[in-house]
Amino acid sequence: MSEPPVKVVFLPSGRRGPVAPGTRLDQASRQLGADVQSLCGGQGKCGKCRVRIASPTTAGASLSPPSAAETEALSADELADGWRLACQAEVRGNVTVDVPEESRAARQVICKAPAIKAITPNPTVRRLQVQVPPPGGNPPMADWERLKAALAFMDQAIPPAPDIPGLKSLPAILRQGEGRVTIAVHADGRCIGILENADAPLAGVALDIGTTSLAAHLCDLATGDVLATASAVNPQAIFGEDVISRIAHASAGTEASDQLHRSIIKAVNDLLEALYHQSGISPDATVEMVCVGNPCMHHLFLGLSPVGLGLAPFVPMISQSVSISARDIGLHMAAGAGVHWLPLVSGFVGADTIGALLATAAEWHDKTVLIVDVGTNGEIVLAHENRLRCASCATGPALEGATLRHGMRAAAGAIERVWIEPETLAVHCRVIGDTPARPVRAVGICGSGIIDAAAAMLKAGVIGPNGRLNRNLQTPRMLAQGNRLAFVLVPAEESATGSPIVIDQEDIRAVQMAKGAIHAAGRLLMEAAGVKTVDKVLLCGAFGSVIDPVAATIIGLVPDIAPERIVAMGNAAGDGARLALLDRARRIEADRLARRMEYLELTLHPRFQREFAMAMFFPHKKAIQSFKGLS
Amino acid sequence: MSEPPVKVVFLPSGRRGPVAPGTRLDQASRQLGADVQSLCGGQGKCGKCRVRIASPTTAGASLSPPSAAETEALSADELADGWRLACQAEVRGNVTVDVPEESRAARQVICKAPAIKAITPNPTVRRLQVQVPPPGGNPPMADWERLKAALAFMDQAIPPAPDIPGLKSLPAILRQGEGRVTIAVHADGRCIGILENADAPLAGVALDIGTTSLAAHLCDLATGDVLATASAVNPQAIFGEDVISRIAHASAGTEASDQLHRSIIKAVNDLLEALYHQSGISPDATVEMVCVGNPCMHHLFLGLSPVGLGLAPFVPMISQSVSISARDIGLHMAAGAGVHWLPLVSGFVGADTIGALLATAAEWHDKTVLIVDVGTNGEIVLAHENRLRCASCATGPALEGATLRHGMRAAAGAIERVWIEPETLAVHCRVIGDTPARPVRAVGICGSGIIDAAAAMLKAGVIGPNGRLNRNLQTPRMLAQGNRLAFVLVPAEESATGSPIVIDQEDIRAVQMAKGAIHAAGRLLMEAAGVKTVDKVLLCGAFGSVIDPVAATIIGLVPDIAPERIVAMGNAAGDGARLALLDRARRIEADRLARRMEYLELTLHPRFQREFAMAMFFPHKKAIQSFKGLS
Repeated sequence: MSEPPVKVVFLPSGRRGPVAPGTRLDQASRQLGADVQSLCGGQGKCGKCRVRIASPTTAGASLSPPSAAETEALSADELADGWRLACQAEVRGNVTVDVPEESRAARQVICKAPAIKAITPNPTVRRLQVQVPPPGGNPPMADWERLKAALAFMDQAIPPAPDIPGLKSLPAILRQGEGRVTIAVHADGRCIGILENADAPLAGVALDIGTTSLAAHLCDLATGDVLATASAVNPQAIFGEDVISRIAHASAGTEASDQLHRSIIKAVNDLLEALYHQSGISPDATVEMVCVGNPCMHHLFLGLSPVGLGLAPFVPMISQSVSISARDIGLHMAAGAGVHWLPLVSGFVGADTIGALLATAAEWHDKTVLIVDVGTNGEIVLAHENRLRCASCATGPALEGATLRHGMRAAAGAIERVWIEPETLAVHCRVIGDTPARPVRAVGICGSGIIDAAAAMLKAGVIGPNGRLNRNLQTPRMLAQGNRLAFVLVPAEESATGSPIVIDQEDIRAVQMAKGAIHAAGRLLMEAAGVKTVDKVLLCGAFGSVIDPVAATIIGLVPDIAPERIVAMGNAAGDGARLALLDRARRIEADRLARRMEYLELTLHPRFQREFAMAMFFPHKKAIQSFKGLS
Repeated sequence: MSEPPVKVVFLPSGRRGPVAPGTRLDQASRQLGADVQSLCGGQGKCGKCRVRIASPTTAGASLSPPSAAETEALSADELADGWRLACQAEVRGNVTVDVPEESRAARQVICKAPAIKAITPNPTVRRLQVQVPPPGGNPPMADWERLKAALAFMDQAIPPAPDIPGLKSLPAILRQGEGRVTIAVHADGRCIGILENADAPLAGVALDIGTTSLAAHLCDLATGDVLATASAVNPQAIFGEDVISRIAHASAGTEASDQLHRSIIKAVNDLLEALYHQSGISPDATVEMVCVGNPCMHHLFLGLSPVGLGLAPFVPMISQSVSISARDIGLHMAAGAGVHWLPLVSGFVGADTIGALLATAAEWHDKTVLIVDVGTNGEIVLAHENRLRCASCATGPALEGATLRHGMRAAAGAIERVWIEPETLAVHCRVIGDTPARPVRAVGICGSGIIDAAAAMLKAGVIGPNGRLNRNLQTPRMLAQGNRLAFVLVPAEESATGSPIVIDQEDIRAVQMAKGAIHAAGRLLMEAAGVKTVDKVLLCGAFGSVIDPVAATIIGLVPDIAPERIVAMGNAAGDGARLALLDRARRIEADRLARRMEYLELTLHPRFQREFAMAMFFPHKKAIQSFKGLS
């Protein structure tokens, strides 16, 4: 017998409702649609889900006693004041919970309109109107056999085995329409659905599954128009922030792996609902999906265990492009709808990289170009003389704004640009969503913000080429917190949180690690190809469209190149998915690209560690000054 | 944490074993191979599954408290005495259960060892051991790509698109077996499963879905051996006894149609569990199913609405043979398992008729033969001069023993043979399961029993050629119940039920309707073919193996033919399913047979009504006497 539910209220969102006693606050937040963020997967380690009980005197009765993780993360005063970690505290009785600004997941900005303009659709599935003759003959011909006869008369190729689930509505629609039916026909001849509305467009979905966020576009397959766009946080984040922790979670067994699978499928179904709602397109007219994502996202989406991706020699279960029936994974689309994943390259280089290459082909074809896709993992491809060499490196989520002291995703309140006056060290920040009419105060720092901040601090001498914060700087912005230095971007009185927003030594180290890895990977790829310089660097990924090429140059994210040769490509992987959705020739091109990829395994490279260590240094001030005019 | 299993013993069968607490007694009976019958689909309505706890004093502890359905169906005294409904009571502790005669399903006659002996298997799916090389190359090759390379090396055809759900366990089994895997390969090259146990046989299921009962054989695909056999009542019976009432139920809408679909799928999954339990074969090694059944059973099984089968011009949604993925309809088999339905002929003549033709081909090929398949519907095929003409007629379930006053299926206690002494009118009955060592009293009358009884009553003058019971007969066996006459086969004191077992005027009428329809259909087919007589009559269907050719001749079931030319073929439809399961060439043969069938629509035939009315009469005594010597 389960205990009666208790009532939980989240403020300021006001989301409220009954939950079962014993539910953790982060679970309750998910159940009730509140927005407590969870970055470390509920391990009590990141401290990003701090919440405060509105009525602390009763907290003892309404929540479980503080866990070891909580007494570690929170001071005795904070605990007494009602502060708790949402991923630790379990509900025992009715409770009201204050979610402070910095613990809210908020709505993300990545959901921009897609970048590709003109495309001539050549879709895999098209619509066909068929006039089916009435039953005749002896015995009278069955519905499907009459449809087949009509298709044969139209010189359509018809595969021998019909797909029964896609044909369920045939008898009813045949009778309603007096023999006139509109079907969805696959390029291989399969009739994959009977369309209830003969006039509605046939639609498909391009889906980009990132480790951190999901973005989906619903497209008219005949015109290529984007009919609706939706995005969401990847709900697997609660099981771990990066690919490695997701794999670790899945390693617990089939149930844990299935849990990750179910969570992403549910999120995709939610996105589909949002797309249907926005566009008025019905699920039965949504006949195709093309997906990109890294190998771990690919495996979890398909219901495959990702465990092999986490163990040497890091092989995927399958790397060729995969087509699966949408109904096999429970997606709410047409019964005969297919889901196509672009191919993987290796256990680390995924369909997202192939998608990015597909979308940027015009930029790198016949040139020497470095394509850099930065997310929680970094993938770098060097196109040179008709060869494609690629490498992958762990960058950590610092460049996505996560794991920093005051890091956050690119949502409203995130600092995205930083400029420091060289003489006064006054700091100017641009905050996402901030307008003169409606000011938004800073909450934290996102990925492009940290790159900008690091570049600005370097130029102003706040940090040296080795990344050390300059302890001797005479400014109230340099705080010593214990034996840890931190530089204040926004003082407490100007921030939305009431605490100063700082960048500390650890944050700078995280940026150095990330940029060092990418820089070293690029350099070794160039060395393998025997090139000293590249014509262009393409920056792709969720933050690719907002990163400042000058800042990227200043911190040395990519091997020495003038800022004007760095091009921000936006979410090229997602664009690649859309191209492959609308033009089936691009799927074949994607398969060819995957086969052309030569993989450079950095962990086995004899000089990677040395290059990496060297690349962690920032350029000297003198080198930076040559870019000054551009800044 | 699941509770430890408890021990259940069924008497008098002695079947015993552990079951999980919370298991219903009828489920426990199925799991342990005991024989509690279940007619209303476990709704607690029919009261046919009454059982008694052997030790009533402890019943409170070992079973769930009586449900509302039980307190309705059983008196307080009965409950106190340990009586329960098996479909309601859940096991809580060790318990011994007495199954009374009338609640035993007994072993049905249809579930006999299948008749086909020698068959050289040529299955669609076979087992293949593959040694997969370790990952090598740069990047290291994925699991599937390495398996594909190994298969290519063995000159296996490999279709371009792999079936992901069937390959889920590949990475784990590759690593456990150091690269040695056993796969199930379809004839078209598809790898449809990874076998966990490399030595267990690859199995398939032949399933015969009757309107009234289901019969399944689990076969070793490599040897053709029947590994296990199971049968059950079609649970759709609660929605209507015959095809017409099932269609009427489905006409209420999608939900009603889905309800019928789910109920048959659940029943088939239960049969599969029983087959797995009996044989020790695991679901992942069960890679194929071949089904036969009438068009309504076909549509409901596949999740298609049968409504079109009930409206003129009575067309099926599809009539060609159908292959569907077992997972698409939720069958508990290998993830990549396929389900193949033999083709339909028309809205009334189904895959069961094709199966029967397939199994009896040697008997009718190049001859003039009438093949009669009698179930709730009758299908008659005339093979003559390389043409196959068929007709279908409603017979009602009388010849299956259902709807008669004391009708029952061919289970223990059913009267299957009747002989009446012409002078004394003494009746001698043969009862299924009755042996001198272990006498079984009569419970009711099955299909072959009613035909035998009608023939005997006709010969003894108990009924006349018009089917009327002879009111003037001076015998205590002739009872007048109200204004309805009945003839007593077994008096109350000799029956198992304590009531007399009788055949009344309605029962005789039902037999006349059924035999009249079959007789008229046969006659009109012969007329269409221009033949006066046939070489042979093959009786197929659930009761085909036990029907007495002489009795069939006496009542005029088939157009005039000497009894020695009537051959009982048993459940030929189910045999046909097994042939098609084991030999893929037979599936092509079945498709050809379906295309050869010429259909005679009796309802449109100008003389059917007259022929039918005439055929309802029984032959005159004089005609019967000519057979006497044979009886």
